[in-house]
Amino acid sequence: MNAFSLLEKVRRDCPVVHHITNWVTIADCAAIVKAIGGSPVMAHALEEAAQMTMIASSLVLNIGTLTVALVESMKRAAIAAREKGIPVVLDVCGAGATELRNDKCAELLETGAIGMIKGNCSEIARVAGKNVVTRGVDAAAVGENMPRVAAALAVQRSAVVVVTGKEDIVTDGRHTYLVQNGDSFMAQVVGTGCMAASVIGAFVAVAPADMAAAAAAGLVCYEIAAERAARISQGPASFKNNLLDECYRLDQAAVEKKQRVHLVAV
Amino acid sequence: MNAFSLLEKVRRDCPVVHHITNWVTIADCAAIVKAIGGSPVMAHALEEAAQMTMIASSLVLNIGTLTVALVESMKRAAIAAREKGIPVVLDVCGAGATELRNDKCAELLETGAIGMIKGNCSEIARVAGKNVVTRGVDAAAVGENMPRVAAALAVQRSAVVVVTGKEDIVTDGRHTYLVQNGDSFMAQVVGTGCMAASVIGAFVAVAPADMAAAAAAGLVCYEIAAERAARISQGPASFKNNLLDECYRLDQAAVEKKQRVHLVAV
Amino acid sequence: MNAFSLLEKVRRDCPVVHHITNWVTIADCAAIVKAIGGSPVMAHALEEAAQMTMIASSLVLNIGTLTVALVESMKRAAIAAREKGIPVVLDVCGAGATELRNDKCAELLETGAIGMIKGNCSEIARVAGKNVVTRGVDAAAVGENMPRVAAALAVQRSAVVVVTGKEDIVTDGRHTYLVQNGDSFMAQVVGTGCMAASVIGAFVAVAPADMAAAAAAGLVCYEIAAERAARISQGPASFKNNLLDECYRLDQAAVEKKQRVHLVAV
Repeated sequence: MNAFSLLEKVRRDCPVVHHITNWVTIADCAAIVKAIGGSPVMAHALEEAAQMTMIASSLVLNIGTLTVALVESMKRAAIAAREKGIPVVLDVCGAGATELRNDKCAELLETGAIGMIKGNCSEIARVAGKNVVTRGVDAAAVGENMPRVAAALAVQRSAVVVVTGKEDIVTDGRHTYLVQNGDSFMAQVVGTGCMAASVIGAFVAVAPADMAAAAAAGLVCYEIAAERAARISQGPASFKNNLLDECYRLDQAAVEKKQRVHLVAV
Repeated sequence: MNAFSLLEKVRRDCPVVHHITNWVTIADCAAIVKAIGGSPVMAHALEEAAQMTMIASSLVLNIGTLTVALVESMKRAAIAAREKGIPVVLDVCGAGATELRNDKCAELLETGAIGMIKGNCSEIARVAGKNVVTRGVDAAAVGENMPRVAAALAVQRSAVVVVTGKEDIVTDGRHTYLVQNGDSFMAQVVGTGCMAASVIGAFVAVAPADMAAAAAAGLVCYEIAAERAARISQGPASFKNNLLDECYRLDQAAVEKKQRVHLVAV
Repeated sequence: MNAFSLLEKVRRDCPVVHHITNWVTIADCAAIVKAIGGSPVMAHALEEAAQMTMIASSLVLNIGTLTVALVESMKRAAIAAREKGIPVVLDVCGAGATELRNDKCAELLETGAIGMIKGNCSEIARVAGKNVVTRGVDAAAVGENMPRVAAALAVQRSAVVVVTGKEDIVTDGRHTYLVQNGDSFMAQVVGTGCMAASVIGAFVAVAPADMAAAAAAGLVCYEIAAERAARISQGPASFKNNLLDECYRLDQAAVEKKQRVHLVAV
């Protein structure tokens, strides 16, 4: 994999990445897509969700502050994306925390339009049907072999599964990437998970034929920026600002020298 | 009072602080809870507002961008919090500016679940029934003895009342704390008031037995961070970033040396 | 024109600028109004949209994340503003991207309350009825004489028209200003367009008698701050923070030395 060549493609093509996302990190998601080289758009009205999707190159859904009405817009956008043949990333933010989230995740997955499911380990374990305890939107430890859980979920849902954490897992059920970039500071900062999904949305937009490789490349770039940001930050706010700046500044030397991703057997 | 020992408890317990808040500062509120050591969650759907409250250790409500539907979710969450016995902080953001805000404040207070009412001096004066002029969401001067107004409101509503300003008043009607930390820069920056309520939410989550002391301790820590931030900031954006970073970095020496809080007779 | 004297008037009067805006940049809009010296308020509930407008000195509407319900609140606020006689700025964010946006722009303009229409070149071209291709919310090149298109739209709608871009056009149909301040970095950062509308909202609030001159003055100040910010920024996040700080710090020498605005024949 050459993560930097995909980053260059994002910057060259400037794909429109449509989001229907949460109100906490919506500004972060827009900012990171722009910083990495894409063109973010956010349009959640039921009446335009599908039409806006038709001008986009990928769609990112995030249930962080879902409502019943918002999920209806997500479904309409997802179905439009399926018709257009563009990737749909679902961030199952907070899955497992309430019945509403579990039910709506299931409904969204049943549209058949979700090409990628992304979450932290406890969220993905819950979506995979494991009886783990979650605690709000932060990751909780799960006593599971997560690469195996993720690969099985990928096969079951015919989707790429992304599990973010100390090491990220990206799997389509046949190939499983382990991304070992990143910094522990990311877990201290609100929005880093949602922004990861948005970066992935920009990368799969320009390489939809191999979404697992594209997602892994996106995470590599984003997390190398995070490593660079961590070295110059004093706390969570400066870290987030530096993360955005470093995504914008990322060059070939940095990515090729620091890239830590490999295929693993599951 | 030992403010730092409570901060340590927040960092150790990492309480889930549930919010139903406004769309302007929702990201700031999440960020400050995380920076101070808690785990923020924001879930406003009517269907899950109560269930999310049941996994939280405190609930922060803020009417800054209220709608009728949002207040229904707030009520449902507040009633769940009352049943679970966790603290509920109501930020009466913009109270007095419109009839809707006044009516909805009253309805929320009538649930009997609000254990803490927080606002600036003009907002609290209005909630206490004083006929003061407000002007949007910024504090306006009021010709009232605010410690006395606050203490009377606390008794009337069986709630702790917090009045933020140059000096903050925290009172349960019997004990009244005056917090003299903070920096005048705070009034120049959008979100500092909402973030104060979120910090308080994290502190009362770990010390619900004495909410007035916990709120005063939270304000002390937050405002010492603000003092440190002000010294290294060039304007409102760098101030807010530094405030978040300084909350994250706050250590025992800084808090114990700078803490300025005392009980006053009302 | 003396842009700095208007900035001083904003700082002295601290006008309340009411917004019904989008969820992506709502925090940025509030922050920039505060940084430039105004008092932002955001209240979108149908029940209070009009009443909040009555305590404001201007109203800024932005359709970036419009819904049918939100536009109803915008209409109610716009009509209240017309009755009170305060300026209404409409940011036609994303106009042309979907039918919903086009329809709702038309409905808002038909209230007769919109005194200023603001957008990038492709958005304004679409509102003016030109058949240009738009692409989400970012500006697209249009093969039009934009000063002429803007001036004709101003006459047609009896409104000041503002076209932001490398050079900004501000026209009431009789007088057309070209603002040549700013930095190319602005186009790399989410929110700079929305913030421009909010700054304009603060300036027209204190000088409603000549909205074109006030808007041009606001853009001059905002964009001189952007020039100063660009010189000390490493990427989009530091740029946005520095832009806010520089708006707050702007002094007479900087504005008078750097101001680049002149009347042009159309």
